[in-house]
Amino acid sequence: MVTRAVMLVGWLCDDEAELMMEEQWKTERQGRKAEEWANLIRVFTCPEDQETRDVLVHLMRQILFELHDFLIQNVGITEAVSLKDIADRCTDTAMNREPEKRLAEVITGVFDEVAPHAVNVASPYFVGHMTAAIPYFMVHLKAIVAALNQNVVKLETSKMLSVLEKQVVAKIHRIIYRNSEDFYLEHVQNTHTSLGSFTEGGTTANLTALWVARNKSLKPAKGFRGVEVDGLAAAYVAHGIERCVILVSRRGHYSLRKCGGLLGIGNGNVIPVDVDHKNRMMPSHLKSLIEACKAEGNTRILAVVAVAGTTETGSIDPLYEISEICRKEGIHLHADAAWGGPTLMSETYGHLLKGIELADSVTIDAHKQFYMPMSCGMIFFKDPTSLDAVAYHANYIIRKGSVDLGIKTISGSREAHCLILDSALKIMGSRGYGLLIDHGIELARRFAREIASRDLFQLVTLPELNILTYRICPNSAQEELKRANPERYNAINAHFNEVNRILQQEQREAGNSFVSRTVLEQETVFPGAPNGKVVVLRSVLMNPLTTMEVLRDILDEQEAIYRAWLNGELTRKGRASSLSSS
Amino acid sequence: MVTRAVMLVGWLCDDEAELMMEEQWKTERQGRKAEEWANLIRVFTCPEDQETRDVLVHLMRQILFELHDFLIQNVGITEAVSLKDIADRCTDTAMNREPEKRLAEVITGVFDEVAPHAVNVASPYFVGHMTAAIPYFMVHLKAIVAALNQNVVKLETSKMLSVLEKQVVAKIHRIIYRNSEDFYLEHVQNTHTSLGSFTEGGTTANLTALWVARNKSLKPAKGFRGVEVDGLAAAYVAHGIERCVILVSRRGHYSLRKCGGLLGIGNGNVIPVDVDHKNRMMPSHLKSLIEACKAEGNTRILAVVAVAGTTETGSIDPLYEISEICRKEGIHLHADAAWGGPTLMSETYGHLLKGIELADSVTIDAHKQFYMPMSCGMIFFKDPTSLDAVAYHANYIIRKGSVDLGIKTISGSREAHCLILDSALKIMGSRGYGLLIDHGIELARRFAREIASRDLFQLVTLPELNILTYRICPNSAQEELKRANPERYNAINAHFNEVNRILQQEQREAGNSFVSRTVLEQETVFPGAPNGKVVVLRSVLMNPLTTMEVLRDILDEQEAIYRAWLNGELTRKGRASSLSSS
Repeated sequence: MVTRAVMLVGWLCDDEAELMMEEQWKTERQGRKAEEWANLIRVFTCPEDQETRDVLVHLMRQILFELHDFLIQNVGITEAVSLKDIADRCTDTAMNREPEKRLAEVITGVFDEVAPHAVNVASPYFVGHMTAAIPYFMVHLKAIVAALNQNVVKLETSKMLSVLEKQVVAKIHRIIYRNSEDFYLEHVQNTHTSLGSFTEGGTTANLTALWVARNKSLKPAKGFRGVEVDGLAAAYVAHGIERCVILVSRRGHYSLRKCGGLLGIGNGNVIPVDVDHKNRMMPSHLKSLIEACKAEGNTRILAVVAVAGTTETGSIDPLYEISEICRKEGIHLHADAAWGGPTLMSETYGHLLKGIELADSVTIDAHKQFYMPMSCGMIFFKDPTSLDAVAYHANYIIRKGSVDLGIKTISGSREAHCLILDSALKIMGSRGYGLLIDHGIELARRFAREIASRDLFQLVTLPELNILTYRICPNSAQEELKRANPERYNAINAHFNEVNRILQQEQREAGNSFVSRTVLEQETVFPGAPNGKVVVLRSVLMNPLTTMEVLRDILDEQEAIYRAWLNGELTRKGRASSLSSS
Repeated sequence: MVTRAVMLVGWLCDDEAELMMEEQWKTERQGRKAEEWANLIRVFTCPEDQETRDVLVHLMRQILFELHDFLIQNVGITEAVSLKDIADRCTDTAMNREPEKRLAEVITGVFDEVAPHAVNVASPYFVGHMTAAIPYFMVHLKAIVAALNQNVVKLETSKMLSVLEKQVVAKIHRIIYRNSEDFYLEHVQNTHTSLGSFTEGGTTANLTALWVARNKSLKPAKGFRGVEVDGLAAAYVAHGIERCVILVSRRGHYSLRKCGGLLGIGNGNVIPVDVDHKNRMMPSHLKSLIEACKAEGNTRILAVVAVAGTTETGSIDPLYEISEICRKEGIHLHADAAWGGPTLMSETYGHLLKGIELADSVTIDAHKQFYMPMSCGMIFFKDPTSLDAVAYHANYIIRKGSVDLGIKTISGSREAHCLILDSALKIMGSRGYGLLIDHGIELARRFAREIASRDLFQLVTLPELNILTYRICPNSAQEELKRANPERYNAINAHFNEVNRILQQEQREAGNSFVSRTVLEQETVFPGAPNGKVVVLRSVLMNPLTTMEVLRDILDEQEAIYRAWLNGELTRKGRASSLSSS
């Protein structure tokens, strides 16, 4: 033990350099450093004087009410100031040594330099993505969470917030699975079981579900400690297989491919299941894929992923039929309801998700139709012991037997999102959320009718929920497409693909409104059409301030852009704008 | 095309149920639903009237200044109200149909029912975990980000914020890698390269680094499209290997094992490298492990992970020596500087991280020593093309050639954390952050001296940064341990393990202060000691309001608890508290 003693003594007393540093530290405290330090301490301390408090409150007032005015100058990503110009302003990478701005100046800077070039996702005219207006109170709730700064990875940095997360998770679990009161009383605060957890977003939620499915399938066997410990290569040997696959709707989110890559099974083994003309997974094709996998003899199906609200078309897979198939085959069924999940709160349309309660796991994004600020997802499991398949422990936290939530999550440190959702549920009630869902679905149906009634437009996918796709394609062209041979068909289609691509960019860059665009398979959305791609405009109707008047404006603008294009009046037609490749 | 036309017509015009729904919808609008809807619209709209605005501002004032008063009632997770009591209050899982609270009531509820049972991580007496006080302005910055609600997964929902993220990432990259001005001008806004990205936290950052390392190592070969596409089993065949391993300091964060499990190589193949008596990875042992792997002939080393600021002891691995070994062997070196990274901003101690610029990737947590609110991590890559190994695309966003940040991140939708860090850097300057680092390190050294000077305590690990471990173990017992045979040594040690476990729980539950505890290997921290475990108290000194006076109070309290225990005065001694297993 001599080494130790010498080391300690040496380190504590004999280190001249260290002692000098200590002296220097004390001396410097007398001068400038003392002033700097006092300033630092100030920003970490709750101010007692009324004047400082008034300033801080005034700044919050600006954030609440004035930020809005700077943001609403444009909708979507305009070219009023080009992306290149903005990028050119953000090339300084030297870190400032001295403080260069006070909070008030930072806020002014956000108003003047950031907000005008951010995207006004809250505009009723921004109907292109799954990000929209959020209730005003969300800013307060986010501020509360920041002020509390709890970390729900462990009880020691969150206490009640960990308990609250379990309660909120159980509340949402209950609207999905509708188990008995006894079931929820048994599990809501059970430290040995877990009904699910909050995640960073839908991707992490899907990853959690497929991680669990992988581990439950490739479980321990003689001489094999399970895939989580020994890895996939050993798992394949132990289980006598050569390949694992995940079967996913062709309309499934790209995150599912990413999960396949991350989890080591390979995204090439995330196999698309064909969809019907309503963009719903075809159970018949699912069955034949399963049979084909079984026939291979050495392929394991880890999971089937059904979608409740596809990203591109808002379609809902036939959950009941798919669950029946999975049940018979003993395959984990994951339902990606990142978008559609909150439909369960609608008293009118909740039935559209019938069968979701049969899924082994369900993803729901809270920053989508729970209208929470970016970014918050959730994952739920039918079986409260499922998450045991991915449990981790450490010596200083998440110890065995503890209630630390971090034992069974991909993330470590995590924000206490549960407090926001819990509060929002209290303020809105399921009725409030349900009405928002109803508005979106009903508005989408009326919008579809409006599109179909206009000569220049073609409705491409019907809105099962509140998402639809359409394109500029005059009735005359639609008629011609019906009679065209495949070669001619593809030529006409290619023409309108280009037109719609330009149209979407022009509208986006004009900054009055925003719809997105995507690419679907011709043969899927137009029965009988030859193989090929169709560029479509995509509307996501989740903003309660969006009305038919707004949507008619958007269509009017699109018609005007199209006419200008026809007349060769688009000054920027065909030119590559700085955004054109995005 | 007849099917399609019939379907369209049928859906648009002939669906009686749908038309009835439409009528009903209109009628209901006249009555209660109209009122509910008006209320909903109101919460989504910026209020114009002064009265409403004043209420919202008043609520922010409460959040800023009054929340604090409720939070400071206790430090850490006390047993004043037991965890069981709190859990018993959170068992209602039925979702309310009607709105049950207004925002003001929710905030009152947080004050009365949540904050008093949350953990006062901002207290100067809370020195047990890597979560502490954050500057006051962080709440404003978080509110701004929520009010903007940008989603940086894609340009179309973030525009300038995506550009800003690239700039902030480059700023931090620059303090790590210190490349030339030209290098940064070339890459800061380059849409084809990436210097790194923000992540949810350190775990996701580490996962991103090891995902890249895995994919770069198991690259495409003849008949093999790379591990991301074809999976690990195929990769092993194509590369003629049977196992992949990651070599990690024995003090590495548990997330690294989790990454091994997630990525499919198996957490059993995340192999600990021994540490010396300063808890630093031993290059000699790393070399011998590498040799052993090479001798196996069929084992691929995907990465070596060195730690700059270990979670339990704050130690820094010898980065330069390790990087030399990795360079010679062509192995990806990842530096987990989640904790220690910001030390680079200290003008006095930045040199402690010398060699980090040689790592291929670096993790830094922004919610730790950048003092950002939960939760925000960052990952950086030396080579701006590294992230190409994990790129994903979709049809509607993150298209090829776009500037969408989501192409190269694990997450999809993401909060615009960059705005918070950018603003904080402007307000604090690197000088401000550096002073915080200096304070922590210097305070830890003085604290170590204080511990060593007290008869009842034993310093277990010296603070290389601002973390140290110690335990109650009187000088007399320390002397006895020096002379003890292994059996006797372990008996004495077991006694003090129990004492320190009880001590930490008692102090935590008393609610005056909080230190954490962990378990280290006896033989590592006490040279010459027999194999075994030692329970230690762990202090993390990051709060600028923590002073020597505070730390002396904490030690005094620990001495008092120990004496009470010796005298049999601990009423709860030995009983299993509701927190005891955590």
